Amino acid sequence: MKSIQYRPIGIIHSPFKTREEVSVQPRLSRRVKGTIELQPNYKDGLSYLQKFFHIILVYHFHLSKDFILTVKTFHSDSSHGLFTTRLPDRPNPIGLSVVHLESIEKNTLYVSNIDIADGTPLLDIKPFISTLARQYGTTLGWLTDIYSDK
Amino acid sequence: MKSIQYRPIGIIHSPFKTREEVSVQPRLSRRVKGTIELQPNYKDGLSYLQKFFHIILVYHFHLSKDFILTVKTFHSDSSHGLFTTRLPDRPNPIGLSVVHLESIEKNTLYVSNIDIADGTPLLDIKPFISTLARQYGTTLGWLTDIYSDK
Repeated sequence: MKSIQYRPIGIIHSPFKTREEVSVQPRLSRRVKGTIELQPNYKDGLSYLQKFFHIILVYHFHLSKDFILTVKTFHSDSSHGLFTTRLPDRPNPIGLSVVHLESIEKNTLYVSNIDIADGTPLLDIKPFISTLARQYGTTLGWLTDIYSDK
Repeated sequence: MKSIQYRPIGIIHSPFKTREEVSVQPRLSRRVKGTIELQPNYKDGLSYLQKFFHIILVYHFHLSKDFILTVKTFHSDSSHGLFTTRLPDRPNPIGLSVVHLESIEKNTLYVSNIDIADGTPLLDIKPFISTLARQYGTTLGWLTDIYSDK
């Protein structure tokens, strides 16, 4: 299939300099702060974004390596399909994170709850609209045994 | 910044043949069914995915047009930044949808609650893990006036 080209719209900065330093789950990085330097030409696209407490960052896992289709994660000893995981090593290494938007100054976004490596290229910002997610009900699939979904 | 190349891992099929036919909000397309034809070589990545009721589809808005950084949506008469919206016309036209996974047969996924145009190139599949989203609390930003977040 025809390949698709994207161009980063900004760069994500965080205290995590390596893959290993990136928290595996966002719940571990609740207080971790980062900044997003949006390219100045996209600044107008941020209008009214400060009214959201949480935003979705869509980004390129620039530190990703070759992917394996069935993987063992720290959650389980048995192998699971790559698409049941959030691992960075994927056919298209696109990452999604919900972060807390603290403030915006010009084209810089100050965020917390960040679980993204420093220097990660940003592809998109989307509003986190919880009602849209929540209406679907909830399931944790094979993670049910690990997390309680209360 | 350096451009990034992705290659579709499959194709999304739905009853929506045009941009206009695509429901604006997933809540309107609850019963709409679609299929995802994953390329056969990625089939092993689906192992255990059937244990999830909901999955996140990451896709390329192949019908997108030029973007405008401040836009009027049907929610409001005043203009808002593009990044506060889910519109398909974006610097990098990447779409995200949470859909209901009904079943999997070989490399075909049967889904419902789909709000995606027919023929859309699929970039990634991720598990929808509601506890990870929900821990962040909720806000609707400037949509608060339109939706009740109960």
